[in-house]
Amino acid sequence: KKIAVLQGDYIGPEIMHAGLEVLKLASENTSFKYRIYNYPFGGEAIDRYGEPLPEETLKGCQDSDAILLSAIGGPRWDKKRVRPETGLLEIRKHLGLFANIRPTMINKVLAEKSPIKAEVLEGTDFVIVRELTSGIYFGKPRELDAKLAIDTSSYKAEEVERIMRVGFEMSRHRKKHVTVVDKANVLATSKLWRKVAEKISEEYSDIKIDYCYVDAAAMKIITQPNSFDVIVTANLFGDILSDEASVLTGSLGTIPSMSVGVRGPSLYEPIHGSAPDIAGEGIANPISMILSIEMMLRESFKEYEIANNIAQAVEKTIEKRFLTPDLGGVATTNQVVKEVIKNLK
Amino acid sequence: KKIAVLQGDYIGPEIMHAGLEVLKLASENTSFKYRIYNYPFGGEAIDRYGEPLPEETLKGCQDSDAILLSAIGGPRWDKKRVRPETGLLEIRKHLGLFANIRPTMINKVLAEKSPIKAEVLEGTDFVIVRELTSGIYFGKPRELDAKLAIDTSSYKAEEVERIMRVGFEMSRHRKKHVTVVDKANVLATSKLWRKVAEKISEEYSDIKIDYCYVDAAAMKIITQPNSFDVIVTANLFGDILSDEASVLTGSLGTIPSMSVGVRGPSLYEPIHGSAPDIAGEGIANPISMILSIEMMLRESFKEYEIANNIAQAVEKTIEKRFLTPDLGGVATTNQVVKEVIKNLK
Ligand SMILES: CC(C)[C@H](C(=O)O)[C@@H](O)C(=O)O
Ligand SMILES: CC(C)[C@H](C(=O)O)[C@@H](O)C(=O)O
Repeated sequence: KKIAVLQGDYIGPEIMHAGLEVLKLASENTSFKYRIYNYPFGGEAIDRYGEPLPEETLKGCQDSDAILLSAIGGPRWDKKRVRPETGLLEIRKHLGLFANIRPTMINKVLAEKSPIKAEVLEGTDFVIVRELTSGIYFGKPRELDAKLAIDTSSYKAEEVERIMRVGFEMSRHRKKHVTVVDKANVLATSKLWRKVAEKISEEYSDIKIDYCYVDAAAMKIITQPNSFDVIVTANLFGDILSDEASVLTGSLGTIPSMSVGVRGPSLYEPIHGSAPDIAGEGIANPISMILSIEMMLRESFKEYEIANNIAQAVEKTIEKRFLTPDLGGVATTNQVVKEVIKNLK
Repeated sequence: KKIAVLQGDYIGPEIMHAGLEVLKLASENTSFKYRIYNYPFGGEAIDRYGEPLPEETLKGCQDSDAILLSAIGGPRWDKKRVRPETGLLEIRKHLGLFANIRPTMINKVLAEKSPIKAEVLEGTDFVIVRELTSGIYFGKPRELDAKLAIDTSSYKAEEVERIMRVGFEMSRHRKKHVTVVDKANVLATSKLWRKVAEKISEEYSDIKIDYCYVDAAAMKIITQPNSFDVIVTANLFGDILSDEASVLTGSLGTIPSMSVGVRGPSLYEPIHGSAPDIAGEGIANPISMILSIEMMLRESFKEYEIANNIAQAVEKTIEKRFLTPDLGGVATTNQVVKEVIKNLK
């Protein structure tokens, strides 16, 4: 299998290296064979080619079976004409990465660091399915002059339909409950979302569907996080709510994500940023990268055994409190990686 | 002074009645004289006139010195062609209520009910200033057919300028720190917000300004709520973040809000809804309505003494735990009102 690797900026290369180390050891003596192809992306690519998503990188990604991305951007490029984040939007659009999937699960050990009370977190296990290639992120016209600015949010019924299907399919193997988050009391696009959701839900009569306004959802994610199973929502709402939800876990540094391509490869990445403040110190938390790789093995390659092995090794590592400073521990990136590898079966 | 009263739906009339009772007693033997003018609005107005904001109501509001609104809407009108909430958007637009202001303050007694840990809440005291008459709520074109939906978000520089000034002026009497929340890494409107904010901030050199992306802000409101003083943000972001922030207090039922008119009267209302599930039971929490009236006395009428008197009476009532069921108590609306009145000086 061909894996395209975009190691990114600041702590990016450190955690990517850590993750690939675990992948190597976990796949040893299995039938899973893969090859790594490195491509420049984000800030690194701006420095070398003047653009965050060079042609070569895009081609390489299109040619691959899965893409691993660590984290990009940082203050070094804040004043540049082109910003690393533009590369994110471009790769999403070009590869048709229309569905972004982020799990929110509570690990008892890490939940101690959560700002939310333990009794509220009890039983929390939901997934946010965020539409990623349309909505206000990409709508035209987009205009800006000194006196006026305009953004456009638009959705086609077919775009809503395919993301709804991702949500329903996921829910089928979970708690069979889909919540559509929108602002249908104000927005035309949200009204379309509801209409399409209602139609699709007829095909999934075993799955309960309900609707929640985005403002109410922003409250409920904190007050009753265990009332959700699968949340399906538009690009901008998903951006806000998935970051809000990540706080519940008490451990941003452990959350992976997946962006599903229409056809072609999916992309896997940690949800956190490039952490310029701790880059180079060898203390970046590698767990979200390792779990992104685990997710890739499971979702793109159906290598459930290897994935399960990695998952339980990470679990054990956390239980034994081999934790980096962001999780309140004193371990280095290397120590965590070594411990994960030791815990592999 | 003329006060327009829109008593609204479900628990609306109950809490409005409670609030006006407190206002009456608190103003007795003071020089503050007022007259109440009741107008139909929301669901009530739909039932009687077929529209949520009848001409007479709008006229009455325009003619008044301040407007009190309780809460509108509910399942009774969910399937109607016109919805009560439309009245909210219309009254905002017609009266030019361009700035919505919502305090988030922690009361030690009530914070026990917060889903957030006490140590995180420590020192939290911020205000969200939300733009209320523009952005994606009102932008044109707005289109919807079976295949495609479009919403438009637009901001004029002058609209951003006047809301920024509200934020800076508020901050001057507070912690002198303004945070502009936007999505400037994606949206053109957010880029305009930043440009205007930078310009205006030059006039307020005593006030610190910083910028935060809306996704990061959704996290920070939970992880470091005490790092904010005044948040200034666009209509949709403000809708989401102010509801999220209200959860911190552990007591939705106590939070007032103010919507400032360009010229003409401001409008004061609780931030919560019409609570159809407990309507008519006499257990609705009147505190947010009472504090909305307190805010009106302070901001529209400069009646600081009466306002302070009401504020301390409410404080005492909470301390003595005269609390309605939503706050974990057993008191009725009436009992709370009587206790507040007893605590007036
Ligand atoms: C960097 C930014 C453009 C991006 C987004 O808003 O999609 C990020 O916040 C994310 O969620 O991946
Ligand atoms: C009812 C709805 C239109 C309204 C809004 O989104 O502005 C409400 O959520 C609010 O915040 O006052």
